[in-house]
Amino acid sequence: MSTGFDPKRVTSPREARLAMRRGEWTGPTNFMVPGYVQCNLVVLPKADAYDFLVYCQRNPRPCPVIEVTDPGDPEPRLCAPGADLRTDLARYAVYRDGVCVEEVTDITSLWREDSVAFLIGSSLTFDAALIRAGVPLERGVWVLDTAIPTVPAGCFAGPLVVTMRLMTPAQAIIATQLTTRFPFNHGAPVHVGEPALIGADLEHTIFGPPVPSIPEGLMPVFWACGVTPQRVAMASKLPFMITHRSGHAFITDLKADQFCTP
Amino acid sequence: MSTGFDPKRVTSPREARLAMRRGEWTGPTNFMVPGYVQCNLVVLPKADAYDFLVYCQRNPRPCPVIEVTDPGDPEPRLCAPGADLRTDLARYAVYRDGVCVEEVTDITSLWREDSVAFLIGSSLTFDAALIRAGVPLERGVWVLDTAIPTVPAGCFAGPLVVTMRLMTPAQAIIATQLTTRFPFNHGAPVHVGEPALIGADLEHTIFGPPVPSIPEGLMPVFWACGVTPQRVAMASKLPFMITHRSGHAFITDLKADQFCTP
Repeated sequence: MSTGFDPKRVTSPREARLAMRRGEWTGPTNFMVPGYVQCNLVVLPKADAYDFLVYCQRNPRPCPVIEVTDPGDPEPRLCAPGADLRTDLARYAVYRDGVCVEEVTDITSLWREDSVAFLIGSSLTFDAALIRAGVPLERGVWVLDTAIPTVPAGCFAGPLVVTMRLMTPAQAIIATQLTTRFPFNHGAPVHVGEPALIGADLEHTIFGPPVPSIPEGLMPVFWACGVTPQRVAMASKLPFMITHRSGHAFITDLKADQFCTP
Repeated sequence: MSTGFDPKRVTSPREARLAMRRGEWTGPTNFMVPGYVQCNLVVLPKADAYDFLVYCQRNPRPCPVIEVTDPGDPEPRLCAPGADLRTDLARYAVYRDGVCVEEVTDITSLWREDSVAFLIGSSLTFDAALIRAGVPLERGVWVLDTAIPTVPAGCFAGPLVVTMRLMTPAQAIIATQLTTRFPFNHGAPVHVGEPALIGADLEHTIFGPPVPSIPEGLMPVFWACGVTPQRVAMASKLPFMITHRSGHAFITDLKADQFCTP
């Protein structure tokens, strides 16, 4: 993390992206410029792009594709004109043969003429809307594996990854109503209540603190998570892939409240 | 059209598909098995499939992709297991170099090992829901060209095609609320009121009767139309493409009311 820079004082997506481009901010983007659509990033060679896009199409809840760039073009011309996907995220993870070999803050030297970037809607987008609606999230957001299979395409296959949030039953209803309005950012929950029914792995969280025993009066609510396509791409052991680092998303110019009913 | 077969008495999508497979029904599918998602069909060689899928991703309102089949596989395994896209539509249009060269009721002999089928949500899906909500459609549904450009991808580019329906202002509000619930079948209207503002071509309808002068008290409401990707593919003069014939859609097993918030 850098010093002397307050991510909560950023007032526009462009300002946030430029701070990350200049290396002034290398931390997570949750709650940075609330109200704008945030995206997970997956960069693949063109040769792997068709199967991956079909995989996303077959699994729209975990993989809502917001934009696909033309091969070699690092600018997401539709959702953030002028941005550069090689520099405008805080941290990237570089995978070779399915293994993360390094984390970097700039991928300019790794970008290729056949690189295609996929921007995939993140639930970071609706967290701000949940808080506005009075659904507190300070209890935590956990990223968990499940036993639910996704629909395969080409070499891409694997289980659904979910985010889990703890809330009261009344809040669960509000959260269902509200996230239904964001079909391109995972939409409504995939499950509510008993984690075992979807095989949610509470023992080995992918991201987030250890899962506490669930306090009386609260229930877990589960959403499809944009980490799914990353995990699936990792499992397929592709020779070369770049992603954002978990929690360090790309911030688009799309207003979440406008984008909810495209 | 065949005789001795009443499309309104069909009780399941499978029954409707089998009737079309056997050639017992070769007419349009509007109002056939209401309540199930109906789809437009585009069949392309694999070599053209990536650019077309990216085109659809960039234009989700006219081109909501419900399913992409694996190359050579005529079965839409997700939305209608057991169906055969070579036989289970009533009528197909065959294009060579962008020109419709024939209309057929079976494409088995034209299907290739590299054929990929795209099923794209049709507004036929929400027409039944509009009628249930008291929005009458007997005034007609017109398919019109507009001056709104779509976002190009590869060789695919062209203007948005819309459907137009005439309704009272109160019905326009209900129709907006209701179709918002079907984001994967074109979603909310793209325009309401003055046709000239979107360059809607009332003189040369693509489909539907001549447009009457708009009766007092009614207003036109416009939705993105699944004919758009077909017209765009035609304009790109692809060597080989097969589509459904306009109005003769593929009927899936997806319940429209379940699919509205995937």
